[in-house]
Amino acid sequence: MAANPPSLLNATCPVNVSDHERIVLGHGSGGKLTAALIADTFLPAFANPILERMDDQAVVEFGPERLAFTTDSFVVTPIFFPGGDIGSLAVHGTVNDLAMAGARPLYLAAAFILEEGLAREDLRRVVASMGQAARDCGVQVVTGDTKVVNRGQADRIFITTTGVGLVPAGVTVSANRARPGDHILLSGTMGDHGMAILSQREGLEFEAAIASDTAPLYPLVAEMLAAAGREPGGTDAIRCLRDPTRGGLATSLHEIAASSGVAMRVRQQAIPVRETVASACELLGIDPLYVANEGKLVAVVAPEASERVLAAMCAHPLGRGACRIGEVAAAARAQVLLETEIGGTRLLDTLFHEQLPRIC
Amino acid sequence: MAANPPSLLNATCPVNVSDHERIVLGHGSGGKLTAALIADTFLPAFANPILERMDDQAVVEFGPERLAFTTDSFVVTPIFFPGGDIGSLAVHGTVNDLAMAGARPLYLAAAFILEEGLAREDLRRVVASMGQAARDCGVQVVTGDTKVVNRGQADRIFITTTGVGLVPAGVTVSANRARPGDHILLSGTMGDHGMAILSQREGLEFEAAIASDTAPLYPLVAEMLAAAGREPGGTDAIRCLRDPTRGGLATSLHEIAASSGVAMRVRQQAIPVRETVASACELLGIDPLYVANEGKLVAVVAPEASERVLAAMCAHPLGRGACRIGEVAAAARAQVLLETEIGGTRLLDTLFHEQLPRIC
Repeated sequence: MAANPPSLLNATCPVNVSDHERIVLGHGSGGKLTAALIADTFLPAFANPILERMDDQAVVEFGPERLAFTTDSFVVTPIFFPGGDIGSLAVHGTVNDLAMAGARPLYLAAAFILEEGLAREDLRRVVASMGQAARDCGVQVVTGDTKVVNRGQADRIFITTTGVGLVPAGVTVSANRARPGDHILLSGTMGDHGMAILSQREGLEFEAAIASDTAPLYPLVAEMLAAAGREPGGTDAIRCLRDPTRGGLATSLHEIAASSGVAMRVRQQAIPVRETVASACELLGIDPLYVANEGKLVAVVAPEASERVLAAMCAHPLGRGACRIGEVAAAARAQVLLETEIGGTRLLDTLFHEQLPRIC
Repeated sequence: MAANPPSLLNATCPVNVSDHERIVLGHGSGGKLTAALIADTFLPAFANPILERMDDQAVVEFGPERLAFTTDSFVVTPIFFPGGDIGSLAVHGTVNDLAMAGARPLYLAAAFILEEGLAREDLRRVVASMGQAARDCGVQVVTGDTKVVNRGQADRIFITTTGVGLVPAGVTVSANRARPGDHILLSGTMGDHGMAILSQREGLEFEAAIASDTAPLYPLVAEMLAAAGREPGGTDAIRCLRDPTRGGLATSLHEIAASSGVAMRVRQQAIPVRETVASACELLGIDPLYVANEGKLVAVVAPEASERVLAAMCAHPLGRGACRIGEVAAAARAQVLLETEIGGTRLLDTLFHEQLPRIC
């Protein structure tokens, strides 16, 4: 393996996961098993330093500019849910992965795997929603592909969206730049997307329906970068950005901790969770910190810039509930520490098995 | 709809295909139903002039260079077949779509949808094959995604590969540049890939096994572009390039005819088909001109450059069987004319229903 080894795996994978000789749902969880699958199977086959950075997007030199490049398959079920559908989700998820590199999203590719028998009207709705989401994000779907498989060999519709964007000169946002003393900011409530999907799937009814938070985050990121400004060395005062999707906030914090070799200390009481989401989580025995979000971000920011950035977030419609949830600390090993409501501190581990399959 | 309407659809879609209120396999055939689905559902939703060019890849302005961008989902079954597997196919198919724009392939994104229960060893083999194919092509897989769906909601493994490449300054290859008098060149035998898949699937045994022709075409394209050179106006003497994959040679010729508003006249006797492939096609009642290839290309070349280009093709391992199969002619409507072996001429139509599902 080349330079820049994925320390993520050393830090978060103490158990032996090579026992699994068949794929299990946990391999798609975004947690330990996914990390092990990537380390065991994908990284050796594709060995290159860009992939080994293990970011959610690749940033590659491209003439005078840098190109950001990211791909995601969407297999969410149901395909229509409160607050969105698989089409808008596929656009938002991909432009958000670009935005987390500080990149301006430009173009999308969309590949469809359709199950024989899918209603044309459902496809039309999904695709219209993708088109609307793309226009809202200022991106264009410029190429695509369609495959149809026999009935029973897929589940209605799977969409793979791939995005390219431009990283403005000088932008240095990356998961490996968190330093002790940095502040950890969160843009809003946790768990809305995953619990919206799960509530609909399980037929749960709450007094107030839970809606997905699916939304494009680049406009918020642009405001944050402008407010933060540069440090004396010329680097961005915003050090890391992540959208806590599959695996939730706990997983995003772990990824930053592992990539930067630091501890992330967060306060449970500071992490906003809607009351309906909290109730649904309690009912189903799920921890909202592991539940997917599709319109939220976590930022690690130099302490001097933290107040300015938080003000910029609160001034933006997608950051209205923004708050500081903790700080980065030095640590002998990468870890995530949660100060609980009763005053204790516990380690937040990464997911091992799949908690919520097919939520994105 | 914006400029540059897809005349493809007017030219090749005389039947009413909106009857289908559910997706049928033919929507994935690459033929009439696919074209209708794209026109009816995808183009209106994503309306933009780059997509409406209806090329197999998007070429977008990107700083001083142009970026080529293409995506394909691979759902081939079986996933291992004589001559290749879904992994090498996913790399070759994507770099070939870039090469057909004259672009040098640079980076790939790979998104996996895995069925719960897939053997890890099969995944390892597929991914190792992708890695090898990428190295052979000089491209890097720099980003990716993995989703796992429940058993019975996918068929083992689906791979979506997306590629970006650079189009060298001045390259003008495009499906809309064919002109009357141009020569039509083909790089080798037709039907090998599709019949390799189908023979294995149907358990057919022939004296000599049929192997897929899956291979990366950019090195051949680079030799051809160099040999062809530029015309007095500065445009490439190679006017159009297509890899006749799903839908076969007939479909590629139709796409060029429709895009350029010309007739493509080809001679059946000049089109090379291996004896084993011809036998298998006859046995199964399949026309080899509609069968997918994964390592062949068809080129439309200015007549003055035709001999040079053909010599360059024959000198390359992937063009050893290259030959001239016909010429471009003026026509009131876009069409493909086949001079048959018995001296007649017939119209080669596009596919309506799926002939060979899941061959790529």
